[in-house]
Amino acid sequence: MGRAESPDETDPIAWVGAWRARIEAALDRLLPAETAPPGRLHRAMRYSVFAGGKRLRPLLALSAARACGGDLDAVLPAACGLEMIHTYSLIHDDLPALDDDDWRRGVLTCHKAFDEATAILAGDALLTHGLGGFAVHPAGDAYGAARLEALTAVAEAIGTAGMIGGQMEDLEAERGDPGSTSPAERLEAIHARKTGKLIRASIAVGAILSSANDDLRSRLDRYGDRLGLAFQIKDDLLDVESTRDALGKDAGKDAARGKLTFPGVHGVESSHRILAETVAEAGEIAARIESPPGPLAYFAAYVADRAR
Amino acid sequence: MGRAESPDETDPIAWVGAWRARIEAALDRLLPAETAPPGRLHRAMRYSVFAGGKRLRPLLALSAARACGGDLDAVLPAACGLEMIHTYSLIHDDLPALDDDDWRRGVLTCHKAFDEATAILAGDALLTHGLGGFAVHPAGDAYGAARLEALTAVAEAIGTAGMIGGQMEDLEAERGDPGSTSPAERLEAIHARKTGKLIRASIAVGAILSSANDDLRSRLDRYGDRLGLAFQIKDDLLDVESTRDALGKDAGKDAARGKLTFPGVHGVESSHRILAETVAEAGEIAARIESPPGPLAYFAAYVADRAR
Repeated sequence: MGRAESPDETDPIAWVGAWRARIEAALDRLLPAETAPPGRLHRAMRYSVFAGGKRLRPLLALSAARACGGDLDAVLPAACGLEMIHTYSLIHDDLPALDDDDWRRGVLTCHKAFDEATAILAGDALLTHGLGGFAVHPAGDAYGAARLEALTAVAEAIGTAGMIGGQMEDLEAERGDPGSTSPAERLEAIHARKTGKLIRASIAVGAILSSANDDLRSRLDRYGDRLGLAFQIKDDLLDVESTRDALGKDAGKDAARGKLTFPGVHGVESSHRILAETVAEAGEIAARIESPPGPLAYFAAYVADRAR
Repeated sequence: MGRAESPDETDPIAWVGAWRARIEAALDRLLPAETAPPGRLHRAMRYSVFAGGKRLRPLLALSAARACGGDLDAVLPAACGLEMIHTYSLIHDDLPALDDDDWRRGVLTCHKAFDEATAILAGDALLTHGLGGFAVHPAGDAYGAARLEALTAVAEAIGTAGMIGGQMEDLEAERGDPGSTSPAERLEAIHARKTGKLIRASIAVGAILSSANDDLRSRLDRYGDRLGLAFQIKDDLLDVESTRDALGKDAGKDAARGKLTFPGVHGVESSHRILAETVAEAGEIAARIESPPGPLAYFAAYVADRAR
């Protein structure tokens, strides 16, 4: 049966479901076994990776690869690397010295379920295996240059000019360092780094590993930029409007900590408006890339509608 | 002036000194500037990288590249990546939840000089920039396959089957988990992972990026294996026999913590004997690779004679 006739290809929701299942299976295959020593470390890594993540980043990489006519099976290991890297960032962010969160996705955070030393090392290991995974590509050396380019894009997105830098600036903002720019500017800069860049890089990885042309890459990059911003506005709104039960983690903690958030800076109503505009932009870009509407359109709607 | 006539090439000590200076300059060039935001994070990264490290791992990569007739300037960025990765491992090992050390190389550890959150993120950033650096090679895409191979070797050496796994098993041994093997076996297994594998991988990186043949690579690998073991025995002996002033960190802490060490398992005298034998083996392998004796011979002697 040809791919084009598969229900996966015509129904974005079925496509996302089918690939989410393949991501779960690939993560299980790629992560070290709990029976291999050191078992406690491997259990902690798997505990956090399989704690109910939405697999947004690997799905975005695969969605971009699909839009570029890429070989999705060949992109799958790098996509899983993105999920490992995302999980590492959550484990370290939740540590007592950072956000000190006890709950995540409805279960205890890694350092509460295990201990702090194990959580630090489990995060380190997920980052290491995640980045190291970019060297592994089922199609062999043919994609060598693309793999290096994808690795560079991800390392840049999660380094001090990206995710880690955003986390650091978030901490400094929380500590009351006023900085030299306005709260609205700092908010955008922190969020673009802390969440936006990895989401954007996930889409870039799918495009790079599918040898997309420059025009398609730049349109996907703009889509990723809008999607990342929408994702973060929604995250901030969920923290204000949702409950611990719905969210799977403590709600209202951002405000209690004095974190810079979209509702805090712009108000709840304006945040909803900015979210709607941003999502509409992402949807319009998706419509010019995919026809009929596919997973890119699905995710543009999903980020604003999700309950957690 | 040709390289062959340079004093660097005939005097191993001068060669090591000259390349150490180039490593320092390259690290300074490759690390983000303190003036770039987030400044505190960049200062913490630089604080630990420039806190008096011996640059053993980058020097070993360059020594291996020299023995393989490689382009040392082209290996330099990856060599610096090894030092960033080594520094990350020290910062995280020193954290209160892990070894809880206040001193390292004669200065305060990163979390004491800054704070715990900054130290966790600085370690994360050094790991990220270190691994990401393997994608960067001055000679361009020609070395793509070699860079991916080098990255794979390093990621394996520092993952859960390597350095992080060794650190975890070290913690578990300290917590009194008896394991199913003898103390001598566990000691070797922990040390091979915790320290040995990155030293061995550093040599492999130099050989891989110099396109060495299989015979030379396997001899260098054996050299690296012996050197890594010698390095760790000496480290354990220094902890027993040295003082805080000479060592730049607290002495005698391993025993106080009940860590598995060579003097603890084999006794001080036997440890000195095993060290001498291991160093002799490394020296013999080096003599069959380099003629006249060069930096590989130098480092075989150095690991046993160093005062810290």
